[in-house]
Amino acid sequence: MSVTAAQGFRAAGVAAGIKDAGSRDVAVVINDGPSRAAAAVFTSNRVQAAPVLWTRQVTRGGRVRAVVLNSGNANACTGPDGFGDTHATAERAAAALDDSAAEVAVCSTGLIGQRLPTTALLTGVEDAVAVAGRDGGLPAADAIRTTDTVAKIAFRRGPGYTVGGMAKGAGMLAPSLATMLAVITTDAELTSQQLDRLLRQATAVSFDQVDSDGCESTNDTVMLLASGASGHTPDEEEFGALLTEVCTELAHQMVRDAEGATKHITIDVTGAISTADAREVARSVARSALFKCAVYGADPNWGRALAAVGTTRATFDPDAVNIAINGVWVCRQGAAGEPRAKVDLSPAEVTVTIDLAAGTHSATVWTTDLTPEYVHENSAYST
Amino acid sequence: MSVTAAQGFRAAGVAAGIKDAGSRDVAVVINDGPSRAAAAVFTSNRVQAAPVLWTRQVTRGGRVRAVVLNSGNANACTGPDGFGDTHATAERAAAALDDSAAEVAVCSTGLIGQRLPTTALLTGVEDAVAVAGRDGGLPAADAIRTTDTVAKIAFRRGPGYTVGGMAKGAGMLAPSLATMLAVITTDAELTSQQLDRLLRQATAVSFDQVDSDGCESTNDTVMLLASGASGHTPDEEEFGALLTEVCTELAHQMVRDAEGATKHITIDVTGAISTADAREVARSVARSALFKCAVYGADPNWGRALAAVGTTRATFDPDAVNIAINGVWVCRQGAAGEPRAKVDLSPAEVTVTIDLAAGTHSATVWTTDLTPEYVHENSAYST
Repeated sequence: MSVTAAQGFRAAGVAAGIKDAGSRDVAVVINDGPSRAAAAVFTSNRVQAAPVLWTRQVTRGGRVRAVVLNSGNANACTGPDGFGDTHATAERAAAALDDSAAEVAVCSTGLIGQRLPTTALLTGVEDAVAVAGRDGGLPAADAIRTTDTVAKIAFRRGPGYTVGGMAKGAGMLAPSLATMLAVITTDAELTSQQLDRLLRQATAVSFDQVDSDGCESTNDTVMLLASGASGHTPDEEEFGALLTEVCTELAHQMVRDAEGATKHITIDVTGAISTADAREVARSVARSALFKCAVYGADPNWGRALAAVGTTRATFDPDAVNIAINGVWVCRQGAAGEPRAKVDLSPAEVTVTIDLAAGTHSATVWTTDLTPEYVHENSAYST
Repeated sequence: MSVTAAQGFRAAGVAAGIKDAGSRDVAVVINDGPSRAAAAVFTSNRVQAAPVLWTRQVTRGGRVRAVVLNSGNANACTGPDGFGDTHATAERAAAALDDSAAEVAVCSTGLIGQRLPTTALLTGVEDAVAVAGRDGGLPAADAIRTTDTVAKIAFRRGPGYTVGGMAKGAGMLAPSLATMLAVITTDAELTSQQLDRLLRQATAVSFDQVDSDGCESTNDTVMLLASGASGHTPDEEEFGALLTEVCTELAHQMVRDAEGATKHITIDVTGAISTADAREVARSVARSALFKCAVYGADPNWGRALAAVGTTRATFDPDAVNIAINGVWVCRQGAAGEPRAKVDLSPAEVTVTIDLAAGTHSATVWTTDLTPEYVHENSAYST
């Protein structure tokens, strides 16, 4: 289903020769309207790839006819020439659609610091537009994979409308948007202002909660396109809830497919004096290489988690903090609590609860363990 | 040599049974004067081990007769009982020396969250004081090892005085003091105020520049003791330079012995508008798991370094940054420069130079690659 679950959208994924071995590497998502309202959120990295700079301009207008995505090359750190390549990509798609390049968004993912093979890419864009159809959602999701082992898609039906999407992201999952590309479509009628607000709310509690290795990409982009093809104007709150479900499901798929991971760790911080404090603590633990190695080794090493809490600026008393791992309160009031041996770390799902015992706010971050396979994968593959 | 290179100091390292297999695990360093001026710097982690809390109080007085150190157990996250154990340790050493516990510093390193085996420890303290001698520098350095594969010592002779020291640190090397214990001694005549100032200056450009895995310990302590036994009052600047050399040599030994590392990476940031900016950028690159994996794989992946620069608040123009790896400018003005193939990453020493092209300030951080062996070591060993 993916991006074509909603009415008014066509998609395609084709092999243009950017990646080796004839894998799909170019996708298009086309909005046939009647509306083409759109919104997007981007990486907060200050080094931004050419397609991010381009698509930021495009979405400022609030209208997007099509999104072109390629894998195999991120077109990041490529200077003015790289920006020209993105521009040419949008122009080629616009020509094929007989539309304006100013309403064509572009996303790229893959190698940094190398020019795109533009001849292959532009031919691929034409091919993709030519074959784009209602059955193109899965091929499109397949075409944006890099080290992803599976295509990532999700959808929800609302009363009278649909929300669906696709995403990629397996390495470099990180803060303020897990490193990722995602395109979410809906046939609901909503303005670009509504989409912008709802997308920011949804990503804050979904993609933003993913932090697999603390590395933030130059290319993160999440787009939300509305065709209005259902003719249905949804309740904003109801739509927001469905959108959040789609984003959360895609985010969970990314964590489960994170490079080399064997454990999916949910870090719940409670008892904070503010949500910001809770988030800072959760992210600090999610980024502790030592704690993540311990989880890989099935070692309920709460001391490493507490040491990570201690590096934050959050309000807490070290002698009041409680920590549970998979429900066993191994740390009570900053010291050893229940026996570590009680903790069962054999399941792939691990929950770490950190009670700061200082307030009533909470936050969650999803991360993974740190494994030898992560190192292998990232020492061999040039991103 | 180590802590007994300078006149006026005795030391010992004994096996008390805290660690398995009869390894040395308790050390003492005794200052026989005539002066006992001292200073110390500690971890900035807000979760601080009992010995850190104790020794902070002791050094506030500016006088230290002896330092007791143990490996095998960090006495961190052990609550009031753990603080009592540290107090008892100082009392036992003081009794053996017929001196005041208020002038006995204590340092611990090893497992977090477990009570010390106090009977074994206290017997070990008595044994160590009993056998402490001028030849005890090496056994003491051996006794503070945890996952360190070698004892770490250094010394320098000044005109009429000596500075020597020992350190431990192989895992959890981190910011604002690499995770570590160090004791540095001198027979020069200096006040505790002078020692404090000189020690802070020296650690800022030595131990503080180490960041092997971004994890900051609960136990970091660097102590500087002066016996005055040489009768020589040195020039402050000259003494500070020698002290910095000893600290730097110990810091380099720690990086070279970092857990599982195969590469020693020096990150030089230049062209920053402030030293703080340069440090933030260097540390961000030193903490990029992806960049460290790439170096392990001998992949000169400057894009991952530039992406890490982009996550900082430092002043720079992404289209102006230049990056060299082992002297080859692979990134010029934010895009590909010299061919990556020119970079030889086979030597163990790797230098990454990041020119922000924004100002005239610079900073250096020493780190290591991220390897499968790091993961193995930290998933098996409970720190």
